[in-house]
This record gives sequence, C-alpha cells and structure tokens, in this order.
Amino acid sequence: MSEHIYKHINLTGSSKVSSDDAIRAAIARAAKSVRGMHWFEVVETRGQIEGGAVKYWQVTIRIAFTLED
Amino acid sequence: MSEHIYKHINLTGSSKVSSDDAIRAAIARAAKSVRGMHWFEVVETRGQIEGGAVKYWQVTIRIAFTLED
Amino acid sequence: MSEHIYKHINLTGSSKVSSDDAIRAAIARAAKSVRGMHWFEVVETRGQIEGGAVKYWQVTIRIAFTLED
Amino acid sequence: MSEHIYKHINLTGSSKVSSDDAIRAAIARAAKSVRGMHWFEVVETRGQIEGGAVKYWQVTIRIAFTLED
Amino acid sequence: MSEHIYKHINLTGSSKVSSDDAIRAAIARAAKSVRGMHWFEVVETRGQIEGGAVKYWQVTIRIAFTLED
Amino acid sequence: MSEHIYKHINLTGSSKVSSDDAIRAAIARAAKSVRGMHWFEVVETRGQIEGGAVKYWQVTIRIAFTLED
Amino acid sequence: MSEHIYKHINLTGSSKVSSDDAIRAAIARAAKSVRGMHWFEVVETRGQIEGGAVKYWQVTIRIAFTLED
Amino acid sequence: MSEHIYKHINLTGSSKVSSDDAIRAAIARAAKSVRGMHWFEVVETRGQIEGGAVKYWQVTIRIAFTLED
Amino acid sequence: MSEHIYKHINLTGSSKVSSDDAIRAAIARAAKSVRGMHWFEVVETRGQIEGGAVKYWQVTIRIAFTLED
Amino acid sequence: MSEHIYKHINLTGSSKVSSDDAIRAAIARAAKSVRGMHWFEVVETRGQIEGGAVKYWQVTIRIAFTLED
Amino acid sequence: MSEHIYKHINLTGSSKVSSDDAIRAAIARAAKSVRGMHWFEVVETRGQIEGGAVKYWQVTIRIAFTLED
Amino acid sequence: MSEHIYKHINLTGSSKVSSDDAIRAAIARAAKSVRGMHWFEVVETRGQIEGGAVKYWQVTIRIAFTLED
Repeated sequence: MSEHIYKHINLTGSSKVSSDDAIRAAIARAAKSVRGMHWFEVVETRGQIEGGAVKYWQVTIRIAFTLED
Repeated sequence: MSEHIYKHINLTGSSKVSSDDAIRAAIARAAKSVRGMHWFEVVETRGQIEGGAVKYWQVTIRIAFTLED
Repeated sequence: MSEHIYKHINLTGSSKVSSDDAIRAAIARAAKSVRGMHWFEVVETRGQIEGGAVKYWQVTIRIAFTLED
Repeated sequence: MSEHIYKHINLTGSSKVSSDDAIRAAIARAAKSVRGMHWFEVVETRGQIEGGAVKYWQVTIRIAFTLED
Repeated sequence: MSEHIYKHINLTGSSKVSSDDAIRAAIARAAKSVRGMHWFEVVETRGQIEGGAVKYWQVTIRIAFTLED
Repeated sequence: MSEHIYKHINLTGSSKVSSDDAIRAAIARAAKSVRGMHWFEVVETRGQIEGGAVKYWQVTIRIAFTLED
Repeated sequence: MSEHIYKHINLTGSSKVSSDDAIRAAIARAAKSVRGMHWFEVVETRGQIEGGAVKYWQVTIRIAFTLED
Repeated sequence: MSEHIYKHINLTGSSKVSSDDAIRAAIARAAKSVRGMHWFEVVETRGQIEGGAVKYWQVTIRIAFTLED
Repeated sequence: MSEHIYKHINLTGSSKVSSDDAIRAAIARAAKSVRGMHWFEVVETRGQIEGGAVKYWQVTIRIAFTLED
Repeated sequence: MSEHIYKHINLTGSSKVSSDDAIRAAIARAAKSVRGMHWFEVVETRGQIEGGAVKYWQVTIRIAFTLED
Repeated sequence: MSEHIYKHINLTGSSKVSSDDAIRAAIARAAKSVRGMHWFEVVETRGQIEGGAVKYWQVTIRIAFTLED
Repeated sequence: MSEHIYKHINLTGSSKVSSDDAIRAAIARAAKSVRGMHWFEVVETRGQIEGGAVKYWQVTIRIAFTLED
C-alpha cells in the first residue's frame, strides 16, 4: 500500500455452493466494472433456508480499490 | 433472494415530519437513479434541534439493490 | 422489577404502515402465546422496498417476560 | 457548526403515543433548563409492555448543546 | 418477506469437516422440530483445537422462522 | 465440546445479594425445565436503585444447552 | 416506568473489596446530590494492579434518575 | 487512581488546525468550570468540509474528573 | 442541515506525514469528482510499518455530500 | 501514567468461588512471569455449568504492564 | 475447562485455497511453538484481490492455550 | 501480503507532543525486540490531563508482524 487513495464499496454475493463461493461471486461481478481492487473484508454472513437446508449462502463484503488520479 | 449480486449505498434522508418520513425521503430520492432496490436497514437516527424542538429528523439507511449482469 | 427471572425472545414484526406498527404487530402476535411480557428493546430496523417505496417495515425486537416459578 | 464547544447529555423520554413522540418529550423537557441545543442522536429504543401491548415508548437520546464562553 | 411475524433462535452447530458444515448441521437439527425457517445469520465462529489442529468447527447462527397465526 | 448441537436462551436473573448471585438465580430457574446446560455468558449487568442503594442486581446471561437428537 | 423523563450520568466507583462494592460506592456518592435514581447499567469493569494483585476494583456505571418537572 | 469516585462528561471540541487541537480546545473549555480532571478518551472524530477541504476538526471526548466528598 | 438528502462514500487516504494529513488527502481526492461535501467521520486509523517506523498513515473516512435534486 | 510504553496480554482466569476470584486467579498466575502490571480490563465473563449450577467462573481480562527500556 | 488459566494470542493465517484453510494454517504455525491450545475464535475475515479474484484468504483468529503452573 | 502468518501484539504508547507521536513511540519501542512489523491499527486513543491540559497522549495500537518459519 502506498500513497494511493482507496474507495470502498459494499456488495452481497450469493452462491448455492459455499460461503467462500459467495465472496468469489461478488468479486467476480465487481471485476466487470471496477479496476484496481486490492482487498476485501467480510461484513456479514447470512443465508436463505428452504426445505430445512441452506439454499443460498449470502456474504456481504467491503471491497477496496485504488482511485486513479 | 436468489443468486443475484447486491450493491449497498448509504443515504441520509431528512424530514420535518417524522423519522419514518426521513427514510421514505431517502428511498424516494434514490429511486430517481437506482433501479432494483430490495431492502434497507437503519444505520443511525439523528435530528436537528431548533428553538427547543426537533426541526429535522435525519435517518441514515443502507439500501441494497440488484446489480444487473 | 423484583426477584423474578425474565426470559427473552427475539421477534421480527412487519407492517405496511410504520416502524412503530411493526413493533406493535410483533408484540400482539407474542401475546397470543406468552404471558407476563414486561418490556422490549429494538434490535434492528429494516424494510422491504418495492417500486421505489417502502412496502414493509420490519423491526426486530427483544421481548422480556416473567418466568413463572 | 463552528469553533464552538458542545456538551452532550443523555436523556430517556417516554410517551404513550409513539417512539418519535418519546424523543420530542425528552427534548421538550431539556428545553426547560438547557439553551443552545443543536442536534440529537438515538442511543436506544425500548418500551414497556402491559396487557400484551406497548404502554410506554421509551427512547434514549444523546443531545448536544453549545457551551457558552 | 410479507406481513408474517418471525421468531429467532440461536444455535451452535459443530462439524469435523468445515465451518460451512457446522452451519448445515445446526440447520438440519433445527429442521427436526421447527417449520418455516427462512434465513440465518452467522453470530460467531469458533472451534476446538486438539493435537495442534482443528478438531471441531463450531458456528453459532441466528435462525428466523415464520410464526403461524 | 463434541458434534452436539447447542441451543441458546437468554435470561435475566435478579438478586438482592450480588451480581454473581443474580447469575446463579437465573441458572437455578433454568435448571427446572432445561437439561444439558453447558456454559453461560454475561450479556448485560444492570440493577434497580431504591433509597440511594442497589435493591436488585439484574444480570442477563446467555445459556447454551445440548439439543438431544 | 411511566411518562417521566430520565437523565443519565456516568460514574466510576472504586473499592478495595470487590467489583460489586465499587458499584455500591458510586451509587452511594451519587445519592449525596442526586434524587430519584432508578437503575444503573455496568459500562466497563477495570482495576488497578499493585504488587501482582488487584488493589482497586474500578467499575463505570450509567445511572438513570427522574427529572422533576 | 485511588478510592475516589469519578464522573464523566462528554464534550465535542472543534478546531481549524488539527484533530489533536480540537481535543485541547474541549479540555481547555472544560477547565473553566470543572476541577480535578484526570483523563479523557476519544469517542468520535468527525469534521466539517467546505470548499473541498476540512474546515473544522470536531472530536468528541469523554472526560473523567474526581467528585469531591 | 436541511431537507437535503446526503449520500455517503468511504475512502482510505494515506500520507507519509500524519494521520490528519491522510484525511486531508482523501478529501482532496474526492473533491476532484464530488461536489457538495459537508462532513466526514473517521472509521478506522491504520498504518504501514517499514524499518521499524510508520511509513504510511492510512485513515478510512466516511464522507457525506448533498444529492442534487 | 507517564511516558512508559505498555504491553497488553489477554488471560482467562477460572474459579469455583466467584467472578472476582477468577480475575484474581488470572492476575496471580500472570504475576509469576510478568513484572510491572498496572491495570486490567474485563473483556468477557463466562462460566461452566454442571448439574444445573455454576461450576467454574471464567473471566477474560486484558492486563497492561510496563515495557522496560 | 477447569481451574486452568488460559492465555490468548491473535494470529492472521493466509491461504490460496479457502477461508477455513487460512485458519488451519495459523493453527499449524502456532503448534510449532505453543502447547496446550484449546480453542480459537474468528476475529476478522479479509482477503487480497489480484486480477479480479481472491489471491489470499486472510483470517485473524484468537487462540486460547493453557498456561502451565 | 503473502502466505505468511502474522502475529498481533497490543501496545500503548505515550507522548507529551501529539497522538501521532504516541503511536510512533510504541512502534519505536517494539522495534527493539520485534522484527518484521507490517502494519498497525489504532484501538483506543486516551490521554492524561493535568492542570487543565493534556499531559500525555496515550494511544493503544495493534501491531502485526511476520512469524518466521
């Protein structure tokens, strides 16, 4: 990390597979429109239950990316 | 909630009427430029006092909306 | 408050009208099966958005009631 | 807000009508002895239950007011 | 989410396999006696260590389910 | 701790003697209807004041107990 | 609790005897100048160590008392 | 620290110079009417922005001072 | 503050000089693309260490600015 | 407190007698290997339940001690 | 858990594979120099992003181990 | 940051000059015995007051350093 300025965005990713996968989904989606992502932090881990089992893992993360000058 | 990705934005709405109304004002303003809003969460409730009475109710909310693919 | 023992339950009430009304709805529902409720505390205030406006106010409260000996 | 110094006091207001009204009651009472109140922030929202319904809304707020030189 | 009332229960699930699996275990156990579960939220992630390695993953979750009228 | 599933309940115990005693009172009351209690955690310590002295110590604890299969 | 307005003050009491005793000391001191105290809540429990043992128990509490009209 | 009782007050100081200076301003103002101040703790650091730059640093601190017997 | 709606953004500024300077850097960068900034709040203060000394002060702030109608 | 540097360690003490005693046990054990302890702060109060009663009080504290130059 | 005294250490483990694996890495490393580890608790889950994907999962845990007499 | 394992220590630095300087003092002292320090995070900012002015700035930080294999 240097004298860059970082901006943060919060996203909730979801996945039928796992909580880690929900994070990967959120980052993959963000990568379509945001460049220079550096790190993320988990804010909240939730999930949707259907038929007595987890249907969707839903993880909210905070992503930091470099602001270009 | 499905395999969508949600983005969060934080807004402070204000109202002379009530705390609920400050929330409605924030959501109404967001609706002008954001589509696919699903839910909100209250982050902070404050207000401005003038002449010994509440002049503005000011509520900060976190809004989640679907990111289009 | 005396030497009673209190038990806590957490409920989420919802209402189309207001956040206070969501609390009233949760307490009214609890009153059907719980006796001796004394106080509540707001844990979280959220809501569902539809068509750019609040559709449901959803408030989670913690209710304390006396445990009979 | 300028180079003033602000002092904070915490009050719990109560009302039979609504949570907003409990806030108004606390501010109205404070106005009897405190001048220069500028803003408040909600610290805690609770209530008293009687007969399976809310009897008193009780909201604790933090009020900031200017300290005179 | 509609005008239903939701009740919350807190459970700690444990698993030798993974943290996600501890969550699945808690929900599977709850499904034996609770109907209408909608979502969960992770409250705490802990684990037991034995012989210098994780023996049990122990995750505490809050589960919300619909209260029947 | 093994592969058991634990359920949590929150209770407020009260005592004229001490804060520890309020905890003991809550656990003794819970023991009348709950089996398999393993541990507790203090959530909040409060008390009632009368005549310028503590009348009741009131401690809220979270108790975890094993869910039978 | 009724439609009274309550004011909160924060005090740190100290004692060579016990943590409960530090709370009693704070309330006893407050009773010299404040009337109508109703309840307290523990904010922080600390202590001073000397010679490898607790010398003073220091507990910070929030006290609520009725504001006269 | 001895068997004294300490009272806490919360102040927001402001300064055009720096965040530390806002703290010094709050303490200097408190010193006009409060004796026996021992320590402070930063509760919140905010500031006012004007013309794209910090105009006022605003720091809220909690100050503890000895209550005379 | 009036009936405006405010939007919040989170930025991390960095500086070799001081923590206050990291805040100034974040606001100066935001001023290039955001108008109507009113206040900020410190969310987190961190730093990078190199050769046993602080190399970069890194402060994350939340900035609020007016949303134009 | 002077220009010393303090280091913090976290310990969990346990006792069959009381919560205060669990704190004393942790400090007594620390005194065997750490010199210059100044103060402690309670981080968490838990306990083990056996046969429907508290078997061990378990309190986690943060201890601060002077680092020698 | 008995009348032992436990000490806590905080470690950040990292892994290219998963968040659980980052925890396993931290515990495996600690096992090289610490004996008697009993349990851990997740403090923070972060990660490093490179090329629009998670490169390292980084999880900070608190580990408790028995202090020998 | 790579697949290294990081250990955290908490220190309180103090300074007569400024809050930033108290942080520098803590890191300088740590550098005498710890190698591989990477980053710090401010945990708490306090100070000692004497004669109505700040005598010592006291800042508690969490420092992370690489654990050698």
